[in-house]
Amino acid sequence: MSVSLVILAAGQGTRMNSDLPKVLHKVGAAPLLHHAMQAGRALEPEVTVVVTGHGAEAVARAARAFDEDVQTVVQEEQKGTAHAVLQAAPLLEGVSGDALVLYGDTPFVRPETLQAMLAARRRHAVVVLGFHAADPGRYGRLIAEGEVLERIVEWKDATEAERAVTLCNSGVVCAEAAVLMRLCASVGNANAAGEFYLTDIVALARAEGLSAGLVLCDEAETMGVNTRAQLAEAERAFQARAREEALENGVTLTAPETVIFALDTVVGRDAVIGPNVIFGPGVTIESEAEVKAFCHLEGCHISRGAQVGPFARLRPGAELAEDVHVGNFVEIKNAILDEGVKVGHLTYLGDAEVGEFTNIGAGTVTCNYDGVMKHRTVIGKRAFIGSDTMLVAPVAVGDGALTGSGSVITEDVPAEAVAIGRARQVNRAGLATKLFEKLKSIKASKAKGHQ
Amino acid sequence: MSVSLVILAAGQGTRMNSDLPKVLHKVGAAPLLHHAMQAGRALEPEVTVVVTGHGAEAVARAARAFDEDVQTVVQEEQKGTAHAVLQAAPLLEGVSGDALVLYGDTPFVRPETLQAMLAARRRHAVVVLGFHAADPGRYGRLIAEGEVLERIVEWKDATEAERAVTLCNSGVVCAEAAVLMRLCASVGNANAAGEFYLTDIVALARAEGLSAGLVLCDEAETMGVNTRAQLAEAERAFQARAREEALENGVTLTAPETVIFALDTVVGRDAVIGPNVIFGPGVTIESEAEVKAFCHLEGCHISRGAQVGPFARLRPGAELAEDVHVGNFVEIKNAILDEGVKVGHLTYLGDAEVGEFTNIGAGTVTCNYDGVMKHRTVIGKRAFIGSDTMLVAPVAVGDGALTGSGSVITEDVPAEAVAIGRARQVNRAGLATKLFEKLKSIKASKAKGHQ
Amino acid sequence: MSVSLVILAAGQGTRMNSDLPKVLHKVGAAPLLHHAMQAGRALEPEVTVVVTGHGAEAVARAARAFDEDVQTVVQEEQKGTAHAVLQAAPLLEGVSGDALVLYGDTPFVRPETLQAMLAARRRHAVVVLGFHAADPGRYGRLIAEGEVLERIVEWKDATEAERAVTLCNSGVVCAEAAVLMRLCASVGNANAAGEFYLTDIVALARAEGLSAGLVLCDEAETMGVNTRAQLAEAERAFQARAREEALENGVTLTAPETVIFALDTVVGRDAVIGPNVIFGPGVTIESEAEVKAFCHLEGCHISRGAQVGPFARLRPGAELAEDVHVGNFVEIKNAILDEGVKVGHLTYLGDAEVGEFTNIGAGTVTCNYDGVMKHRTVIGKRAFIGSDTMLVAPVAVGDGALTGSGSVITEDVPAEAVAIGRARQVNRAGLATKLFEKLKSIKASKAKGHQ
Repeated sequence: MSVSLVILAAGQGTRMNSDLPKVLHKVGAAPLLHHAMQAGRALEPEVTVVVTGHGAEAVARAARAFDEDVQTVVQEEQKGTAHAVLQAAPLLEGVSGDALVLYGDTPFVRPETLQAMLAARRRHAVVVLGFHAADPGRYGRLIAEGEVLERIVEWKDATEAERAVTLCNSGVVCAEAAVLMRLCASVGNANAAGEFYLTDIVALARAEGLSAGLVLCDEAETMGVNTRAQLAEAERAFQARAREEALENGVTLTAPETVIFALDTVVGRDAVIGPNVIFGPGVTIESEAEVKAFCHLEGCHISRGAQVGPFARLRPGAELAEDVHVGNFVEIKNAILDEGVKVGHLTYLGDAEVGEFTNIGAGTVTCNYDGVMKHRTVIGKRAFIGSDTMLVAPVAVGDGALTGSGSVITEDVPAEAVAIGRARQVNRAGLATKLFEKLKSIKASKAKGHQ
Repeated sequence: MSVSLVILAAGQGTRMNSDLPKVLHKVGAAPLLHHAMQAGRALEPEVTVVVTGHGAEAVARAARAFDEDVQTVVQEEQKGTAHAVLQAAPLLEGVSGDALVLYGDTPFVRPETLQAMLAARRRHAVVVLGFHAADPGRYGRLIAEGEVLERIVEWKDATEAERAVTLCNSGVVCAEAAVLMRLCASVGNANAAGEFYLTDIVALARAEGLSAGLVLCDEAETMGVNTRAQLAEAERAFQARAREEALENGVTLTAPETVIFALDTVVGRDAVIGPNVIFGPGVTIESEAEVKAFCHLEGCHISRGAQVGPFARLRPGAELAEDVHVGNFVEIKNAILDEGVKVGHLTYLGDAEVGEFTNIGAGTVTCNYDGVMKHRTVIGKRAFIGSDTMLVAPVAVGDGALTGSGSVITEDVPAEAVAIGRARQVNRAGLATKLFEKLKSIKASKAKGHQ
Repeated sequence: MSVSLVILAAGQGTRMNSDLPKVLHKVGAAPLLHHAMQAGRALEPEVTVVVTGHGAEAVARAARAFDEDVQTVVQEEQKGTAHAVLQAAPLLEGVSGDALVLYGDTPFVRPETLQAMLAARRRHAVVVLGFHAADPGRYGRLIAEGEVLERIVEWKDATEAERAVTLCNSGVVCAEAAVLMRLCASVGNANAAGEFYLTDIVALARAEGLSAGLVLCDEAETMGVNTRAQLAEAERAFQARAREEALENGVTLTAPETVIFALDTVVGRDAVIGPNVIFGPGVTIESEAEVKAFCHLEGCHISRGAQVGPFARLRPGAELAEDVHVGNFVEIKNAILDEGVKVGHLTYLGDAEVGEFTNIGAGTVTCNYDGVMKHRTVIGKRAFIGSDTMLVAPVAVGDGALTGSGSVITEDVPAEAVAIGRARQVNRAGLATKLFEKLKSIKASKAKGHQ
């Protein structure tokens, strides 16, 4: 049966002390919103609606960056969660099946938990996700009998006995889409804040004689983010889980607590990841590749047998084939390195292709920007680029060609040719000594002048 | 009313196992002594005296580096804390108002705590700072009745009942300067160590009919440093507090526990600080600037909208205006970069000025040192410095000028001119193949020779 | 009296989820096996036998890399620990004295503990190493009376009362070599797994009327590694101990928890190690040297007064004499830098010698590889290598010589000479403006073409 998602992402997050909308703050190099969307995506939803509000455009853009089919709707005024869900009603009209309400600032709900909620829908009209809180504080309490949810009691309305209950409301709910919207439309705002609360739908459903059910999850899944300290806490929780999963998958992490993963990082078995490696979005690493310490990786692919770092930066579009070697103080951007290419030291390769088994000397730069446009550099197979070669793009170096160290290559180099562009070395006997003496006397006379 | 400070900084710190005087070991990139001086400075003291002893000159130099008006006096022999305070007497002669005794190896006493001590002075002749110790061990115990301090009992003299007291002596005291010195002069050394203890002034004051008062602080404030393990513990405490404060101030710290702050670091709201960023002394970062992972910053300023790193090093005198972009493997020292300047890759800019919206190509170096003296490089606005340009200082490049990649610029470049200094590229057909064959045959014959 | 070691290293470590044999996974940059061998080496053993099995060749190679005199024997089928020990019998034939059985996956047993076992051998024929387990779980229990070991009970055979015993078996045993082998040969395999267990020798010894003794160690010493999570835990334990030892030895570690040591790292008193420094194998640092943040060191030596980093990489064979300065984005490999040499920025020195007080400019590269062979660069004393000098090896630069910045040095430079190889700079007035206008119009027409 089909399922739809309504993801609430309208809040400002005043306590974040930030101009950035709360759901765009990042955990694992991805906006909080993407985490919620990723959990929901596992259900293969027919429709996903993100309800935006503060920073609506930026939030909508971020939502579409994760899933271009997502729909967004703006909640102009923040009048409560039921009101927020209702904004999605026009977009769910005519959609059959269930709807799940998720939160853009609650990143860790697991897909398995959402599946359990859908399964519980077979037995209940409305399903609420609850958890046992170590410190229940002012959470709403769930008064349940087994998996049958009797009611949700807000903390301020709860009796002493009810406050002693540790079973709390996560806010995540599931119901048939039409039922959800009908119930939300019936919610009133006769409360201190004058807001329309989604939790009220349970009482409304029960009053109609509908059954409400309860699904439990770990408290860790319901962790919400309201302050920067909580954001940092969420990041720690995410990283701890990511590190543990990597170890379980057979990845070697020398110092797991120093490796920073992104939401979508993929690392193969027996890959070796050194200390202080940072994964930005979009990195895949095959089995038996090695990333040494102090590497910064984003949007790149590293194949089996490749070695990277220490001190390497791979930027989006860096594609390293098998057995490629990228050494220290090397930056690769939007460049394809074929099998066995070596780029050992102090190099910038941007907007380039390099053929198999080519060696790139230290200090090489692809001069890809002319001040106005970017251009490509194409280097063939088994070529040898001498140290400090400037490749002024657009330019091509053929298979098996060699460039002399210190050359500025402005024209294409045919296959098997040597390209060289440098002045001959001249030695002037004794001149260094004279020069230094002169400089020292200038310095001395300047010092004298300053007295 | 005026206040003076006496900061005791004479100890060797034998347990540090170091030749460096204890108070010069660093926390938050600043000597322990600076932390104590900074807490005291918040009181706007009339006179600050640092009592030195071991490594007296180095300690005095460090004290003046923090506050050029500080006075120092050498305690030639270490005969106890009262004796140390007495060394400051000549410098406080004729100074009216209170004197506070602080410790150069106790970095975390808060200004608010010291203010509370000054306030308590209105009610008591001598004020002692105490704390409730989780593990009182051999600390001196404070026997008090409310805020009235009856006496200080050394652990070795304490009864069973007194040892059960958890209220302990921090050693920080406050009294009218003249009274403090008079009392210190009366302290005797009839004890096992033969030392003159500052704590004895409480009993002496009480014997004179003067009142002694108690101010309480958190135990964390009184943390002293006697071993390198304690120094590391102090660093952890400092960093934890600095990270928490940054988050509260609206700074985005991706991985707070990997960022290392200095005592004087200032970071604006909604600035983004990536993982593994290290602040040395003297760094200010404006709102909405971004510092990516693996940056090392000292004595620099980063303006709003600027982006730095990953893998950037900013050294003292680096001034980045708004929207400047500094990329990877770039070092900036004593250089002013105007609005919108871009320095993307593998560059050293030292002793330089760069005009707005100028682009600096990869591999550029300001050759600022001729082996004897340093010289400046001045680059205009909207200029384009080609990759691998050597700027041999002193040299100037005018507005809108361009340097060809691989050029060594030894003479000034007029505005809007192109400067180029490189040999023409020559391609020699087929030569690479011949060269490699020759090299391989040399290698093979060498290998044969080694058989 | 002489002692021999039998180190069991045949296991596959299925739970590691890895193709690498378990004992070759690393802690402190060294295979687990090396840790066990190092503890044993302190006893100056006459014979050391490593019993290999899974990945036998690789394990044997690793064993010999640590100690070229080690002997190895392959246990073809894994039939239990007694069977494994028996494989060493032929190699211990005729060897007098005691034999100790250690485990290649148990890295933290201390030499002092092994010494205590040898001492206990004076009183007992068989000595077993035990420990009090915080959570004894399914460990075999040691039933002892003081230091007299009565028997070892496997968990599954233990009574309720025996399971309440927290004294557990580490598996490490010591006996006269001949006795050990005789007892192992008598062990049967009438158990569920059909394996020959080394622990059975205690019962066999007692049955012969021989005495069995017990030596205790900390539980931390007996930590074994069976999963990647345990490997990470072992790494943490190793690093914690290494950091603590460094602090005790008077090393300044700004942020100890970010420094990663190797098994054989040596750092002198009052050396300063900044945050995020990584030691690979084979690093020695003298007193009063400084390694700044973000350095990656392997197989190198740093002398007193030298300063390295931040962002420096020293590779095997880097030898830095006193007061050498290596700055940022610098790589040194197989190179000797004499006293006072400065290499400040963006440089690669490989296969080189540099004489005292020579200054190496930014962007210098030793072009040590011609595509087929590696060659050496030799630079004299007090020379000045200009920025962006390419030193095409084999090449020599004499004492006091100077190379012009941007030069490609292909021929030797005599002492005191200036070597220069670059084209003269030409300024073309107004050309930059024309060029940019042309590029902008090309871009605009392209954009038009794409409409």
